[in-house]
Amino acid sequence: MATGAWTLHPDRALPAEPGQRAIARELYRAIADLPLVSMHGHIDVEAIRDNRSFGDPAELFVIPDHYLVRMLVSQGYTHSELGVASLDSAAGPAEQDHRLIWRRLCENWRLFRGTPTRYWLEHELVEVFGVTQMPSAETADDIYDHLIDTLGKPESRIRELFDRFNIEILSTTDSPDADLSAHADLAAEGWGERVVPTFRPDAMFYPDRPAWTVTIRSLSARSGIQISDYASYLDALRQRRSAFAAAGARASDHGHLRADTAPLEAADAQRVFDAALRGPVDTATATAFAANMLFETARMSLDDGLVMQLHPGVQRDYSGQILSQFGTDTGFDIPIQVEFTRSLRPLLQAFGHDPRFRMVLFTVDETVYSRELAPLAGAYPSVRLGAPWWFLDSPGGMTRFRELTTDTTGFYNTSGFVDDTRAFASIPARHDLARRIDAGFLARLVAEHQLGFDEAMETAVDLTYNLPLKAYERPAA
Amino acid sequence: MATGAWTLHPDRALPAEPGQRAIARELYRAIADLPLVSMHGHIDVEAIRDNRSFGDPAELFVIPDHYLVRMLVSQGYTHSELGVASLDSAAGPAEQDHRLIWRRLCENWRLFRGTPTRYWLEHELVEVFGVTQMPSAETADDIYDHLIDTLGKPESRIRELFDRFNIEILSTTDSPDADLSAHADLAAEGWGERVVPTFRPDAMFYPDRPAWTVTIRSLSARSGIQISDYASYLDALRQRRSAFAAAGARASDHGHLRADTAPLEAADAQRVFDAALRGPVDTATATAFAANMLFETARMSLDDGLVMQLHPGVQRDYSGQILSQFGTDTGFDIPIQVEFTRSLRPLLQAFGHDPRFRMVLFTVDETVYSRELAPLAGAYPSVRLGAPWWFLDSPGGMTRFRELTTDTTGFYNTSGFVDDTRAFASIPARHDLARRIDAGFLARLVAEHQLGFDEAMETAVDLTYNLPLKAYERPAA
Amino acid sequence: MATGAWTLHPDRALPAEPGQRAIARELYRAIADLPLVSMHGHIDVEAIRDNRSFGDPAELFVIPDHYLVRMLVSQGYTHSELGVASLDSAAGPAEQDHRLIWRRLCENWRLFRGTPTRYWLEHELVEVFGVTQMPSAETADDIYDHLIDTLGKPESRIRELFDRFNIEILSTTDSPDADLSAHADLAAEGWGERVVPTFRPDAMFYPDRPAWTVTIRSLSARSGIQISDYASYLDALRQRRSAFAAAGARASDHGHLRADTAPLEAADAQRVFDAALRGPVDTATATAFAANMLFETARMSLDDGLVMQLHPGVQRDYSGQILSQFGTDTGFDIPIQVEFTRSLRPLLQAFGHDPRFRMVLFTVDETVYSRELAPLAGAYPSVRLGAPWWFLDSPGGMTRFRELTTDTTGFYNTSGFVDDTRAFASIPARHDLARRIDAGFLARLVAEHQLGFDEAMETAVDLTYNLPLKAYERPAA
Repeated sequence: MATGAWTLHPDRALPAEPGQRAIARELYRAIADLPLVSMHGHIDVEAIRDNRSFGDPAELFVIPDHYLVRMLVSQGYTHSELGVASLDSAAGPAEQDHRLIWRRLCENWRLFRGTPTRYWLEHELVEVFGVTQMPSAETADDIYDHLIDTLGKPESRIRELFDRFNIEILSTTDSPDADLSAHADLAAEGWGERVVPTFRPDAMFYPDRPAWTVTIRSLSARSGIQISDYASYLDALRQRRSAFAAAGARASDHGHLRADTAPLEAADAQRVFDAALRGPVDTATATAFAANMLFETARMSLDDGLVMQLHPGVQRDYSGQILSQFGTDTGFDIPIQVEFTRSLRPLLQAFGHDPRFRMVLFTVDETVYSRELAPLAGAYPSVRLGAPWWFLDSPGGMTRFRELTTDTTGFYNTSGFVDDTRAFASIPARHDLARRIDAGFLARLVAEHQLGFDEAMETAVDLTYNLPLKAYERPAA
Repeated sequence: MATGAWTLHPDRALPAEPGQRAIARELYRAIADLPLVSMHGHIDVEAIRDNRSFGDPAELFVIPDHYLVRMLVSQGYTHSELGVASLDSAAGPAEQDHRLIWRRLCENWRLFRGTPTRYWLEHELVEVFGVTQMPSAETADDIYDHLIDTLGKPESRIRELFDRFNIEILSTTDSPDADLSAHADLAAEGWGERVVPTFRPDAMFYPDRPAWTVTIRSLSARSGIQISDYASYLDALRQRRSAFAAAGARASDHGHLRADTAPLEAADAQRVFDAALRGPVDTATATAFAANMLFETARMSLDDGLVMQLHPGVQRDYSGQILSQFGTDTGFDIPIQVEFTRSLRPLLQAFGHDPRFRMVLFTVDETVYSRELAPLAGAYPSVRLGAPWWFLDSPGGMTRFRELTTDTTGFYNTSGFVDDTRAFASIPARHDLARRIDAGFLARLVAEHQLGFDEAMETAVDLTYNLPLKAYERPAA
Repeated sequence: MATGAWTLHPDRALPAEPGQRAIARELYRAIADLPLVSMHGHIDVEAIRDNRSFGDPAELFVIPDHYLVRMLVSQGYTHSELGVASLDSAAGPAEQDHRLIWRRLCENWRLFRGTPTRYWLEHELVEVFGVTQMPSAETADDIYDHLIDTLGKPESRIRELFDRFNIEILSTTDSPDADLSAHADLAAEGWGERVVPTFRPDAMFYPDRPAWTVTIRSLSARSGIQISDYASYLDALRQRRSAFAAAGARASDHGHLRADTAPLEAADAQRVFDAALRGPVDTATATAFAANMLFETARMSLDDGLVMQLHPGVQRDYSGQILSQFGTDTGFDIPIQVEFTRSLRPLLQAFGHDPRFRMVLFTVDETVYSRELAPLAGAYPSVRLGAPWWFLDSPGGMTRFRELTTDTTGFYNTSGFVDDTRAFASIPARHDLARRIDAGFLARLVAEHQLGFDEAMETAVDLTYNLPLKAYERPAA
């Protein structure tokens, strides 16, 4: 390690056994350079519009990456020591020395052994930014200087990388009250098919959240529909969905705590909505209202064709201290057990067989793969299984996903890879890893004579390219 | 694939790594031709008695196979398009062109990649019926013609296949009010030890089911016992269990939603029973009654020695639309989470240590393997673990079963393979796959020097042949 | 098997694939002889103080080993037939012929195929006690004679084995009312750093247990604090924790049914405590009190630095018959599903970010590894994941632990190996197996080019030696 440049092995994350590796290598080679289809992500659309640079190494790799901050915090660093800005003076000021923040990462490189973060960072550093030394206390400064130089170059701006990464289409995540002007600007430049919005209304579905009334007013203003009651609230949502669809959106996205989809009687929904406009409602009431809104979302999608993505099962902002000091989405989200079979039944009874409906299901609870998700997607024409999500977007997690779902649902009821990242520069790493893992899984089936090589090759291409395009294609109305 | 005949690789579903494969191949060869012991299945006894032919390819392979229909439906076909008869004119008429139905399967062969259905169909087509082309749009008609020819021959009738398949014993599934005349006819022909009934009383245990009173009247008529109250209901069940035992039955079978076994006080059971005779009871009451009947079943088994099989955890007829249009058991059954530890405790406290009691537990929820089932079967002399069931009867599912249970319960507290199929022609495929997977699992233990080869060989024979016979042997009274 | 001496393969439990095996072998060799760090176990401290011999083979290997008794019972033996003393004449007298008990084990050697018990026994018999024949009906007597001879020698006493096993430190498990005199005696002989107590207060935390008031009186007597109310009860616990810490204790240990940690209001806790002193309290009340005591334990640990170990999820004494006939802890403990995310939240909200707090979490429910435990340990600086516990302390269980947790929490948030055994002579076998499995897991990462060899080597040493020392190091106050 000490001698010679740091290079990544071309067979990394392929199966170790030579027979399977040879097959996997051939499958991987055939898909490695296919365009990236990125139908679910959290890239800032304005950064693309403005073709921004990425700042310094701490700003690119450490401060905004909650996987990475979380691991360092788990070993005793504070968010402040890693440069995360605090909302609360008790947390102390954020470290301003970005070289020091970068060094903290490099010195703790061992913590990421065996994690996907390690894999992504390696790929980004070596393949995207040309680093030639493994991070360590000794190499931290050299790498920092190299990155400062590289990141400052015009070819490191986001649109140049977009081309270099060979991204065919990228979905952003947008609030219903977004003006979509950055998307419009991009469209005016001919990027309208390359960058599309996604409709993400969670904040407007949970009336117990502190900012709920603010978001409803904002929704009202943006939609031009005076929201005075439940019916006009639904109208405003419909208006925004239409605007999103017109701006190229393929899907809505829903990050609920549970998968419940039981509808309320219209009068009950009206009553909850009215109460919420007047003041806080309790959690149980809000939760029932949110479940009802998933049902309504499915109904709306019959008309506008937005594919419905559901990501349940995460207790957001688990740590009150981290929430109050650093705000939401700073890495202390912890999964809970989630139930799909009974929870989705109201929705599926109403819309599950409708050819206009399409739903993509995600989970961070692996126990539902073989028990609930694969049987559901293996029966309902409207249901597809999303890629392994968040904590599960790892070599092991992606392998287990295929092992636990393919028996019952096959390959063709899955969505193909979904990168789900906030880190633009990590997109190729994530797709590359998924391609390697799928190649390895298919190689095992070939090596065990459960699948022919030609079949595996066709499947690999479908998983990589055709299935994600198809899963997010609006069903014919 | 395009050139040459379609043949199946002799090493299919054995481990890919050469060292393990060599060991697995040797183990597999020693068990490949052992007689089939089929202690749990759903073959129609009258078809055996009448030595029926199987009809055309659509009638044999597509229309009655809910695994296969389900997969095609998940990609947009309707049940009607696949020839399934509807109960409701809204569903449209069933496709009558069976050649077209067959073609729909062949054109969608890719959907089954990586699924056990693919494995079973391959085995049936090539090994049982001599097909030499892989199904595709191009080959569909040729294969159809070949199959029509082959299925029409006398050697393709069920009893000839029974001999050819080397089935030593096959259990059918029968309602308590069955007259068992087909079994009697078979016994008169010397087939009494080869085909035995299984006592399946679910319909009579759930008093909230619409046909419950009808089944109770039928039970009364068949048993010759006037059912006027709970005590006479128990008497009638006892009479039928005796008749089943006399007809060769080894076991009862119970497909409950949950594993609950809490007994009711006799007076409470009487009250529920009386109420149910007068009219509908609610779900909670019916569920408690059904749990009580599992407890009573265990008690009855002490006298008649029928082994008690429990298959909980499936929400039957999940889709209301499919149920109303095509009836029960048409493929829209979805698993739910199931709990065994606390649920079985009432029953095990009463009978778990009784040498006259024997219970075989099945699950489609893999999360209970290492947590609940292996510890229970590794402690109670009365408990055996059934083979991986339904969605789990796949290469991966069977491997995970051994991986997750063997540590705690060993091999000798498992039942050996149980095929659980409605498709007679798939029986050898299913046993063959199980033998390959067990050979592969044992081969890994040998290759890792955790087990000697001679021990693995003895274990392979036990899992294949001796253990299923022993698990379903009535305990000495 | 029949010819030649019984020897154990040097590569046992390493990966079968030659490339990975070569790497694993090299990693294993580097850690095989590191000192044993045994931070959690159930060895009798008086046996060490008195340097006892182990008795005969039945007394050493069969009668006290509930893994082994349980497996033989699951195949029809009674506890009495295996020499377990009964409390109840209905169970019949315990077998007195220890040679016969030993033969029962040897005759049933096949039952342990594929289980960790087999692995441990092999290691003990061959490596520790020089047995040269595999157990069987034929070899039982020879082995018995050999063991009688070997166990009678001075070098087979516990302290000689302690040295031979190269145990650096061993934690025992002790009740808060223990006088710790054996530990004091050992300390006087210079063994104070080698054998340390662990504070295990479960019996005093569950006021619904029959002996609760007795234990409270004993706690009062031992602490010298008159326990008259909740406050003095807490004081007495604090006093004993200090005494344990002074005697070298590193940790407390908590075997609760659930992981609940919700605190009670002081007045409510006082009310429950008073009621319990007067007479029985119901299970729900007692359970809430026990949860509160976990919260209080965390608070106390801020001052005295004892690391808090939590082992939830086992229904103890599941079989009423076994409990009444043979007493507690005789092998009929069955796991239940356990929930950590919401259960631990009250405790983590209060203490999770406190640098003085350290918690080690164990589970026998594998479903929480990737969903709850790895995310929690990968975020909170105070949380470490304990080694796979009890039923999961097996080649498969340990491999799955790494597979399911490393992605999210890495290696450095785990505790390293914890043997958790009552069987002193099995300690090296257990550590040896864990070292082999970790070497194999790391070897796969190296072979798949996910980790460099030098990194894997450093990690192997850390997992084996440094991490357990560090996980149980009292945090700086």
